[in-house]
Amino acid sequence: MPRYHLTIEFDGTNYVGWQRQDNGPSIQGDIEAAGRKLAGAPTPVYGAGRTDSGVHGLGMVAHIDVPKAFPADTIRDGLNAHLRPAPIAILRAQAVTADFHARFSCFARHYEYRILNRRPPPTLEHNQVWPMGPPLDVAAMDQAAQCLVGKHDFTTFRSVQCQAESPIKTLSTIAVTREADRVIVRISAPSFLHNQVRSIVGSLAQIGMGRWPQAGLKAALDAKDRARCGPVAPAAGLYFVKADYPPALLGASADPDAPQAG
Amino acid sequence: MPRYHLTIEFDGTNYVGWQRQDNGPSIQGDIEAAGRKLAGAPTPVYGAGRTDSGVHGLGMVAHIDVPKAFPADTIRDGLNAHLRPAPIAILRAQAVTADFHARFSCFARHYEYRILNRRPPPTLEHNQVWPMGPPLDVAAMDQAAQCLVGKHDFTTFRSVQCQAESPIKTLSTIAVTREADRVIVRISAPSFLHNQVRSIVGSLAQIGMGRWPQAGLKAALDAKDRARCGPVAPAAGLYFVKADYPPALLGASADPDAPQAG
Repeated sequence: MPRYHLTIEFDGTNYVGWQRQDNGPSIQGDIEAAGRKLAGAPTPVYGAGRTDSGVHGLGMVAHIDVPKAFPADTIRDGLNAHLRPAPIAILRAQAVTADFHARFSCFARHYEYRILNRRPPPTLEHNQVWPMGPPLDVAAMDQAAQCLVGKHDFTTFRSVQCQAESPIKTLSTIAVTREADRVIVRISAPSFLHNQVRSIVGSLAQIGMGRWPQAGLKAALDAKDRARCGPVAPAAGLYFVKADYPPALLGASADPDAPQAG
Repeated sequence: MPRYHLTIEFDGTNYVGWQRQDNGPSIQGDIEAAGRKLAGAPTPVYGAGRTDSGVHGLGMVAHIDVPKAFPADTIRDGLNAHLRPAPIAILRAQAVTADFHARFSCFARHYEYRILNRRPPPTLEHNQVWPMGPPLDVAAMDQAAQCLVGKHDFTTFRSVQCQAESPIKTLSTIAVTREADRVIVRISAPSFLHNQVRSIVGSLAQIGMGRWPQAGLKAALDAKDRARCGPVAPAAGLYFVKADYPPALLGASADPDAPQAG
């Protein structure tokens, strides 16, 4: 069956999450329903990650299998037409081979967490940021966060519902920056535990507010104890930004960021 | 009566506009209602401009008169508390004298218009951008727009409902830029005619799509004929960004952008 790599933007506010579930609408379910309308047959969709209810996508990646080949732009435009008025947009579609798998071929995932750090509430970004009144010490947050980089037991920063076999994960990069009254946490890793980003951000917020000492994050990590995690940050501020794949699986013209042949 | 300068952010989607009207909720009306709850008496509010239904505010300015003096932060926080859950946030309040008037003291108004220039529909920015599929020629738009700078008869770019006595206005600056898949039009003037920004942006879009020659904007301006205006751009993409006042009216610590005493 022809397979396509999809880059997807979505507003996760009114969804139960990425994954198809019995208790409400999902991003995956909506795209599969649009695919069925487009192709006249089931079109299974697999995502690079499973986001929780309320989490958003700027560049989520999935693959979709369709019973017959279409031009990639027809896949994109056809899915968008059938998705309307759902707050899901297929930004790009490209043909890939059956060797490509959105989940298993992915070697890096990138998330962004947005805190609106001001006393007045959000308006235009309602449900799209974590509103926090107290001024956050971004330098302290960024410095503290660096202890998480590398391979660690992330038991402290893992939901009790997490189904991963091991709490050992490798964090590639984490950076906390301020952009006017936004505090942004950018975090990349080959893969994440359930609620890992929100657990880390919630703990970093404690440092930013001065409730934890800067060394508190490392102490929490080293404790390998879920009870030592700060209050988990809300889903609304979290964005799945990007997923990386081996260029060979995407073809030459695939990834504009991919290295060019010399 | 003590008077305060307010800087206001709002999502105008579900409002009839800035100004109090009989046919639905207004930004002005919601702030006045919050002021009455805070002060226990009527608190008239006057804005720097009157925005249409669906137009948003990033830094709208208004003044509010209250029957007794409060610390400025209490005005801000009290109004925000009583505004909840309306999508209106008082970003800043500061005491001013009765010489200050949000409308009559204002010497420059700044708007921004946001076009989402891509085929896929908006998701997170639903109702906050003008979605336009065809790739826009931003350089042509920016170059054409410069003919509007200066003092002109803007009859072509004026709503037939406009109540201003004269169609003569002075445009200070206009710039069209691309930021990834956003095309942003920034426009400043001492004051504007009704629908002037949306009329200009709608006409610029015709140039961006290649439907009008680059000289078409000047021809439309010179015609002084409303029928020569392009299709008016929708309200959803328009933002009131900022209003400027003489520093003397705002006091020393008032405007962070104001020149500092040496």
